[in-house]
Amino acid sequence: MKTRAAVAFEAKKPLEIVELDLEGPKAGEVLVEIMATGICHTDAYTLDGFDSEGIFPSVLGHEGAGIVREIGAGVTSVKPGDHVIPLYTPECRQCKSCLSGKTNLCTAIRATQGKGLMPDGTTRFSYKGQPIYHYMGCSTFSNFTVLPEIAVAKIREDAPFDKSCYIGCGVTTGVGAVINTAKVEPGSNVIVFGLGGIGLNVIQAARMVGADKIVGVDINDSKEEWGRRFGMTHFVNPLKVEGDIVQHLVALTDGGADYTFDCTGNTTVMRQALEACHRGWGVSVVIGVAEAGKEISTRPFQLVTGRVWKGSAFGGARGRTDVPKIVDWYMNGKIEIDPMITHVLSLEDINKGFDLMHEGKSIRSVVVF
Amino acid sequence: MKTRAAVAFEAKKPLEIVELDLEGPKAGEVLVEIMATGICHTDAYTLDGFDSEGIFPSVLGHEGAGIVREIGAGVTSVKPGDHVIPLYTPECRQCKSCLSGKTNLCTAIRATQGKGLMPDGTTRFSYKGQPIYHYMGCSTFSNFTVLPEIAVAKIREDAPFDKSCYIGCGVTTGVGAVINTAKVEPGSNVIVFGLGGIGLNVIQAARMVGADKIVGVDINDSKEEWGRRFGMTHFVNPLKVEGDIVQHLVALTDGGADYTFDCTGNTTVMRQALEACHRGWGVSVVIGVAEAGKEISTRPFQLVTGRVWKGSAFGGARGRTDVPKIVDWYMNGKIEIDPMITHVLSLEDINKGFDLMHEGKSIRSVVVF
Repeated sequence: MKTRAAVAFEAKKPLEIVELDLEGPKAGEVLVEIMATGICHTDAYTLDGFDSEGIFPSVLGHEGAGIVREIGAGVTSVKPGDHVIPLYTPECRQCKSCLSGKTNLCTAIRATQGKGLMPDGTTRFSYKGQPIYHYMGCSTFSNFTVLPEIAVAKIREDAPFDKSCYIGCGVTTGVGAVINTAKVEPGSNVIVFGLGGIGLNVIQAARMVGADKIVGVDINDSKEEWGRRFGMTHFVNPLKVEGDIVQHLVALTDGGADYTFDCTGNTTVMRQALEACHRGWGVSVVIGVAEAGKEISTRPFQLVTGRVWKGSAFGGARGRTDVPKIVDWYMNGKIEIDPMITHVLSLEDINKGFDLMHEGKSIRSVVVF
Repeated sequence: MKTRAAVAFEAKKPLEIVELDLEGPKAGEVLVEIMATGICHTDAYTLDGFDSEGIFPSVLGHEGAGIVREIGAGVTSVKPGDHVIPLYTPECRQCKSCLSGKTNLCTAIRATQGKGLMPDGTTRFSYKGQPIYHYMGCSTFSNFTVLPEIAVAKIREDAPFDKSCYIGCGVTTGVGAVINTAKVEPGSNVIVFGLGGIGLNVIQAARMVGADKIVGVDINDSKEEWGRRFGMTHFVNPLKVEGDIVQHLVALTDGGADYTFDCTGNTTVMRQALEACHRGWGVSVVIGVAEAGKEISTRPFQLVTGRVWKGSAFGGARGRTDVPKIVDWYMNGKIEIDPMITHVLSLEDINKGFDLMHEGKSIRSVVVF
C-alpha cells in the first residue's frame, strides 16, 4: 500500500513529505492508521544529528495514536478498529525484564529496533525501491505504519487522538516517573528541575498523588505561569538566587526534598537535583537525556548519608498495562493534557513544529492526519 | 571516678595507656563498663590524621560491648547490670529522621557528637585537669565511658562481649546493608567488592537471606578462602581478568548483578559496582568511605536504564531496635562472628591491633578489658 509520510532523508535537513510504499503486517505485526502524533525533543535530537546511532533515511516520530486497520498472522490482543498508542518501549510479558516485575525495559525486540528494523530484520517502508528505516519502533510521522503487536497499547475509543497521542511519550514519561519510579507519597516535598513538557507532567502527577510542596526550577521566568497552571507551589529561578542554589532549595524544603526530578538533561543540574534531596531518604530521578559523553558526579558521602540516585525511562511504565490507565486518568480529569497541546499542525507543516520547539514557543505541537 | 583508657593525644602518634578522670552520667546519660572493643578502620582513619574533622586529644573506639553500671536522672530504658552495645548512630525515636521510618540517621545529638562532646556540650573525660574529647559518641577504648541513653542498645546477657562488640560496627554495617538498605531477596545474584571484614559480613548476610550467586571481588587472592568460608560462591581477582572487569562480572551474573556492594572506599570501584548491576533493576550500595575530595561518576544512561545508586551507613540499622536482633542472629547461629575475630589483645597491646590492621593481617582485632 501507499502512505503519506514525513521522511528524514538525512540529518540536519528538513523532513520531506512524500508518498512511501508500505508492506502490510507480517506475523505478529499490526498495521495502524496514525491519526495524530506529537513532535518530541527526541525526534529533533535525532534529526539534528546529535544521536550517533541515528539511522537515515527514516520515518521519525514515536508519540502517536491511531486505529488498527489490519493484523498479521497470530495477532490476538488487538483487532481492526481498536484504538491504540504505539509503544517505543514494548511489553512482551515474556522476557527476563518483563517477568522480573522490576522494570519496564522489555528486551524482546531491542536489537532490531535499535537498527531501525522490524523484529524479522527487515523494514516495511520503502521509497522508489530503496528501504526507509523505522524509528524507535514507531515511525508515527507516517499516516500508516506497521508495529509489532507487543508495541501497541489498546486504549478506550472515546479518547481524542490529538490529545492521547501525547501519552505515547511525554505524559507517560513525566507522570510515570512520579508514580512508578519515585512512587511519591502524599505529603511529600518535590523539586522539579526544568519546566518543559516533561517537567509539567511531573508537576501534575505530583499534584495528583497529593504532594505538599511542589517546587519548580527553571532559568526562564516565563515558565512560572505554566508550572503554577499544573500544580507547582513554588518557583525558583536559579539565576536570581544569591548564593548556592542547592542550599537555597534545601532551606525551602526544610532540609531537602523527598523527591527531585531532573527534566533538563544537564548533568550539572542532575547533581544539584541529587544534592537537594533530604539527608536520609531523598530520592533523585534522572529523566532528561544527557549529551553524549557527559557524566554525572557527586561525593559518595551524598549516597552514604541516605540519598538515592535513580533514573526513569518511559516513566517506568509497562506500555500495554499502564498506558491505558493513563488514558483513563486523562479522560477522568485526574490529569490534564489539553492546555499543553499548544499547536496543532498538518503533516505538511511538520517542520514548523520543529521550529516552534527549537524556539521554545511550544509545550507540545501535534500533527493531525 | 578513674578509668584506664587508650588516649589519642595527637594524630599520627601511637595511643597512650593512661588513667583518666571520668565524670559520672548526667541526666539522660549512662555509665558503661566496656568489656571488649573492636579496632575498626575508622579509628585508624582518624588516628592517622585522614579525617579533617578529627579531634584530639580524644578517646577513640566505637565498636564496644559492656555493662551499664550507673544511670543518670530520667533514664528509663536501661538499668545498672544491663548488657549494652554503644551506638555511634543513636536512635532517639523522636527526631524527624527517626520518625520518618525511612532512615536510621538520627539527628538528635549530631551537632555535639561531631564536636567530641556530650549532648550538653561538655566532655566527661579529663586528664590532669585538661578535657579529653569523646569520639563518635562512644569512646570504647576506655574501660568506662559515658553515653547518652539513646546511644546504647540493650542486648541479651548470654552474648559474649568479645564477639558481640563487633556488632557495634562491622557486623551491622555489612549485614544491615544487605537486609535494610538493599533488601536482597532470595535467589538474587550479588557481587561484593572488597573482602575485608565488611565484605565478609555482606557475604554472610547474602547467604542468610538466600542469595543465589554471591560473587566476591578482591585483588588479593588470599581473600578467596575467607570469602568462601562465609558463603561466597565465585571469586574474581580483577588483576587476573583479561579485558574489562565490568563486562566479566556482567557475563558471570547473566546480565549483571541484582545487587552490588562496594566495601572498598575506592571511587573507581564504586563506579564498577554500579555498572556491574543488571539493566532495569540492579541496585548498587556504597558502604566504603572514600578519601576526602574523591567523587564518583558515571554516565546518566546507567541510571536511566534502571540501575540505582545508593549508600548505607551503619547498615541502615536503627541501633536500639535492630542491633539486639543481630545479636540474636549471632547467638542462634544465623550469622557467624567467631572466625572473624582473628586477634584478641589487652588494652596495653592496642597499638599492635592497629599494626595488624595496617599490615592486612587481621580481619578483626578485639581488645578485652
